[in-house]
Amino acid sequence: MIDLYTWKTPNGRKPVIALEELQLDYTIKPVDIGRDEQFQPAFVAISPNSKIPGMVDHDTSVTLFESGAILQYLADKTGQLLPASGAARYSTLQWLNWQVGGVGPMFGQLGFFANRAKEKLPLAIDRYLTESKRLLDVLEQRLSRSAYVGNDEYSIADIAIYPWVVGVMDVNPTLLADARNTRPSMDRWMTTLAKRPAVIKGMKVLQDA
Amino acid sequence: MIDLYTWKTPNGRKPVIALEELQLDYTIKPVDIGRDEQFQPAFVAISPNSKIPGMVDHDTSVTLFESGAILQYLADKTGQLLPASGAARYSTLQWLNWQVGGVGPMFGQLGFFANRAKEKLPLAIDRYLTESKRLLDVLEQRLSRSAYVGNDEYSIADIAIYPWVVGVMDVNPTLLADARNTRPSMDRWMTTLAKRPAVIKGMKVLQDA
Repeated sequence: MIDLYTWKTPNGRKPVIALEELQLDYTIKPVDIGRDEQFQPAFVAISPNSKIPGMVDHDTSVTLFESGAILQYLADKTGQLLPASGAARYSTLQWLNWQVGGVGPMFGQLGFFANRAKEKLPLAIDRYLTESKRLLDVLEQRLSRSAYVGNDEYSIADIAIYPWVVGVMDVNPTLLADARNTRPSMDRWMTTLAKRPAVIKGMKVLQDA
Repeated sequence: MIDLYTWKTPNGRKPVIALEELQLDYTIKPVDIGRDEQFQPAFVAISPNSKIPGMVDHDTSVTLFESGAILQYLADKTGQLLPASGAARYSTLQWLNWQVGGVGPMFGQLGFFANRAKEKLPLAIDRYLTESKRLLDVLEQRLSRSAYVGNDEYSIADIAIYPWVVGVMDVNPTLLADARNTRPSMDRWMTTLAKRPAVIKGMKVLQDA
């Protein structure tokens, strides 16, 4: 049995999608970041960086934080969603890293400066909007040449990227109004992923909490 | 033989340190980001995100971008600097992800707003300074309980984090004047790493370019 400590954010949805795809037994442990629950000692013991998600696998006694590491752990545990070796494995891991180091932080900064910040700072909004659009262009280019992002098959790279792409458009509907209809390969990929039952379930996790 | 496309930045130094530790044959291919060489088509073919580093392993025909993925590839290729399985492997990968998704982007944004930005925006500088100090505190806590960051042994997690910790202090000497001497465990770890020949060589890569 796996305990998943998570919340209704892009990073929080990623491991839920993976757990659903892999049909593993798991229990959701909500960590309401709106109430600063990520700073409570019991959660910090699992995730010393005070960020969701965190995971405890009681079968193996492995405790993990960082959504990218959790996705790789779950894929390796089951031998699914990540090729076991060779070029396709590392291609998948490079695009997973691209999400963790680029898409997540940059989309996140856009969300802060364009929406949550008290002062609206044009320099900062422009910086992160330009970078977010560039990253979406990189994704479009990739998906114009490959059915899925990491390799020819659906993988943890798609699972990592999809919630962030949906999220950045949801949070910035005006700034990114044309983001999807000007990127046909990304649009095709989003339509495909949106039909997967595991993706549907993951995107709705804790939606009523 | 491995071709490493890189430059004298924290992300660019990480794979050089790893290649030196692993005593692999490699050739440095400079990509001068000050001259926008990361946008040249020959490099974009390797790194479609137009970021250094990129790598071509001619022995295996594997081409990779994203420094975190390159580090994992090199470690798996040699069976060194990353435990092959079990809790220690994923602990190392979680701290590697923590650098890729947190330390790198947040230290990078501090560098931009505190130094390179034309306008000095207190909201943005304060945001990234606060987060950078918090991340250094997380590192201090971790190193107060473990000899190295990822697990009890030196690993790709240390190699990923060290150039960024040195870099953030170099770039922000006033803002982070007390960062090291108020964090004794981090200071001990930095002293240990700074003595490794591979670290010394990696930190000096292309310094005269």
